[in-house]
Amino acid sequence: MSSGAALVIGAGDGLGGAIAKAFAREGLTACVTRRPRHEDKLASLVAEIEEAGGKARGFGVDAREEADTVDLFQQVEREVGPLELVVFNIGANVRFGIRETTAQVYRKVWEMAAFSGFLAGREAARHMVPRGRGTILFTGATASMRGAAGFSAFSGAKHALRALAQSMARELGPQGIHVGHIVLDGAVDGEFIRGLYPDWQERLDDDRLLTPAHIAEEYVRLWKQPRDAWTHELDLRPWKEQF
Amino acid sequence: MSSGAALVIGAGDGLGGAIAKAFAREGLTACVTRRPRHEDKLASLVAEIEEAGGKARGFGVDAREEADTVDLFQQVEREVGPLELVVFNIGANVRFGIRETTAQVYRKVWEMAAFSGFLAGREAARHMVPRGRGTILFTGATASMRGAAGFSAFSGAKHALRALAQSMARELGPQGIHVGHIVLDGAVDGEFIRGLYPDWQERLDDDRLLTPAHIAEEYVRLWKQPRDAWTHELDLRPWKEQF
Amino acid sequence: MSSGAALVIGAGDGLGGAIAKAFAREGLTACVTRRPRHEDKLASLVAEIEEAGGKARGFGVDAREEADTVDLFQQVEREVGPLELVVFNIGANVRFGIRETTAQVYRKVWEMAAFSGFLAGREAARHMVPRGRGTILFTGATASMRGAAGFSAFSGAKHALRALAQSMARELGPQGIHVGHIVLDGAVDGEFIRGLYPDWQERLDDDRLLTPAHIAEEYVRLWKQPRDAWTHELDLRPWKEQF
Amino acid sequence: MSSGAALVIGAGDGLGGAIAKAFAREGLTACVTRRPRHEDKLASLVAEIEEAGGKARGFGVDAREEADTVDLFQQVEREVGPLELVVFNIGANVRFGIRETTAQVYRKVWEMAAFSGFLAGREAARHMVPRGRGTILFTGATASMRGAAGFSAFSGAKHALRALAQSMARELGPQGIHVGHIVLDGAVDGEFIRGLYPDWQERLDDDRLLTPAHIAEEYVRLWKQPRDAWTHELDLRPWKEQF
Repeated sequence: MSSGAALVIGAGDGLGGAIAKAFAREGLTACVTRRPRHEDKLASLVAEIEEAGGKARGFGVDAREEADTVDLFQQVEREVGPLELVVFNIGANVRFGIRETTAQVYRKVWEMAAFSGFLAGREAARHMVPRGRGTILFTGATASMRGAAGFSAFSGAKHALRALAQSMARELGPQGIHVGHIVLDGAVDGEFIRGLYPDWQERLDDDRLLTPAHIAEEYVRLWKQPRDAWTHELDLRPWKEQF
Repeated sequence: MSSGAALVIGAGDGLGGAIAKAFAREGLTACVTRRPRHEDKLASLVAEIEEAGGKARGFGVDAREEADTVDLFQQVEREVGPLELVVFNIGANVRFGIRETTAQVYRKVWEMAAFSGFLAGREAARHMVPRGRGTILFTGATASMRGAAGFSAFSGAKHALRALAQSMARELGPQGIHVGHIVLDGAVDGEFIRGLYPDWQERLDDDRLLTPAHIAEEYVRLWKQPRDAWTHELDLRPWKEQF
Repeated sequence: MSSGAALVIGAGDGLGGAIAKAFAREGLTACVTRRPRHEDKLASLVAEIEEAGGKARGFGVDAREEADTVDLFQQVEREVGPLELVVFNIGANVRFGIRETTAQVYRKVWEMAAFSGFLAGREAARHMVPRGRGTILFTGATASMRGAAGFSAFSGAKHALRALAQSMARELGPQGIHVGHIVLDGAVDGEFIRGLYPDWQERLDDDRLLTPAHIAEEYVRLWKQPRDAWTHELDLRPWKEQF
Repeated sequence: MSSGAALVIGAGDGLGGAIAKAFAREGLTACVTRRPRHEDKLASLVAEIEEAGGKARGFGVDAREEADTVDLFQQVEREVGPLELVVFNIGANVRFGIRETTAQVYRKVWEMAAFSGFLAGREAARHMVPRGRGTILFTGATASMRGAAGFSAFSGAKHALRALAQSMARELGPQGIHVGHIVLDGAVDGEFIRGLYPDWQERLDDDRLLTPAHIAEEYVRLWKQPRDAWTHELDLRPWKEQF
């Protein structure tokens, strides 16, 4: 069993929760964050992990705030243990035609999905580089790879996050830090999707939705890779998804 | 000869000026912008274009400010004529290791090189789409295509800009708006470069620096393409540049 | 006016002919090839160029045969003049499910669209490198960029051709040879398309077909680029084409 | 434990052998191939697998020969069991300047690294599609992603193989067949590398060489992925490898 902390920034959706559970099963203490005033919703996730025999901590943090993020990392290192893993998992999928995209939306999507990722990645690097050890994983999407009509804001943020992951991998790899980018190409099962698709159950039964637990296994897998064979980027996609 | 306005946002460097001159030679009124309090520096560019028989106007605008950008576009349309061409040409090349990249730098680079591009692109779309005609060009860089050690901020912003260009092209192409992205893969001759390279003259004589006038010809070329054969993306690179 | 030879390998379609005409207008002697026993069909192309005041020569050559290709290049250099431009323009678009793709089809498509391109590119390099001057252009397609169901053979050959163009550009650029790859993303107007689309005329009138003359202008443009600002790759696409 | 056959085409290097061993540990019967007259060298691999409690069979086959490949697949299905996994692992890394690349080399590299892959992929599809089940994995390389000076032949073949993998994935995924492409970006430890690098041991000790056993684990991992979360492409690279 491993020890140390696994910090999952953005555990408000099913995926973040599944990633936290998976790393708790590996022996790490799952540190999970949501926005302030939503942290009580983390209580059930923390309880679920603890009931399964794992260790977990919940934090209410606005990941867009530099000072809060700096504090979060310091608190985890101080109270929980060395950060072995940091996952940045905040998305902000919106769709607007270019003429209908407000400056506020464009900026907020970037702050949530890219700027927060930069803050998390930088703080992770600051703690991990001196130890020469650690894994930093970013959740990507189809929009990380190509723009599309209606996705100026979202694909802009996801492209920026991918550029961050690449830049960090090239800088930090030789210093012993494994940086990975996981491209989710398809809908992830969860509350949002259940509300969106009338035929949700049919899609789920037919394995046409990415299930959080299966995605989480890939995050664990990347974390376990020996350093002679690191993956920087991989895609995950349901079998019937067109691409 | 054509008429109407060619708006070049970011005419503070040699490239923006060369683009403005090239479109003025085509008969368009070159509308050039720099940051407020630097607009007097535009005076010489405007004078140079006018002495060569062209038409030009200078505007001091902070391209990161939504209201100012909205006003700029309205003013040009009202006082100069319909926007036939908009070029977004603001860069912000900085290099810092990830741990040394401040939140202020990361945000400012994005505001200058991506958010401003979004504002310009959106306003261009708002004026051009109802006419079903117009060309919008974005200046890209090597960092638009891949991240690199030390370039988290710059490649993040340039990736976001490329995602914007792709998203807009896919949305607006079928509406008659030509959106292009020009990837400059190499150093562009100019004041900045002259200060940077001790062997600048040797590089210039050996054609190892992109010259603004030659780049500008490509912008004109894209603008002239008939709509059955539009280029969305091309690279430009000196012959000896490694890639 | 320039002099010397412009060799267009694969002038059996409208595009090859349009490219030949465009370079003949620049003063080069257009040397055009088709398969043996089809070279008489080149006579009308040669006549058309000559009537317009240009110079042209037709050659019946199997571009898949090494010896024939070597001979062709030597003959052109000896009888016409130094090769300033070589265009490789042979396609072989076929569509079969993977299980229905015969080994013969897979091999033949590669021989036509990739192996012939290698022979042409290599011979061009052999003649141009000692002079430190020349342009080599390859015609690409959507299938050069990504595989698709039913396109194992065609996209395999086009990917190989793109790899050739990239490899040659990186090797030969610093030696003064400009290597370019033009990605045609859309249907090119011509006999084949006229037979394929019942609504051909409507598409043509709506500029939804790439017209050979417009594509050809881009080849000329690439050839004219000064060596401080060379394009290696660009796409060409009708305005309403999805991508 | 699983049953059925795992066919590894190209088990002449350490990687092919490691992949075979890994799948034998999963319960599959490892069917390994090398060129005819080299199949006796397979005997030790087969013995090693059997001594470890696994099942294995060796076949001497020229993978470039259609009839031989067709026969191989039929023989395995008949004598061993249904093909659950097919790995195509034949490389042909050569480096020549474009002018020094013979037609024979260019063709042979393609036949080994691309045409053989097509034959293997097609035969795998023919047996797997009717069952709606199976995994087909292709070994890629840095040269699969970009051309480079001196790599016209090798990158051409590897690009073609990647196009095949993409085309097959898009066609066969919705039919239940998982097609993956693993990009090895770095030197793989083995006899060839030991002869090439004087500082081989130092590189190995410093984890700067991909070790076959670690790569093989990733192939097993892809094979085990549930169909709601399939990876089509991933890279593997030693921590200090530049990219």
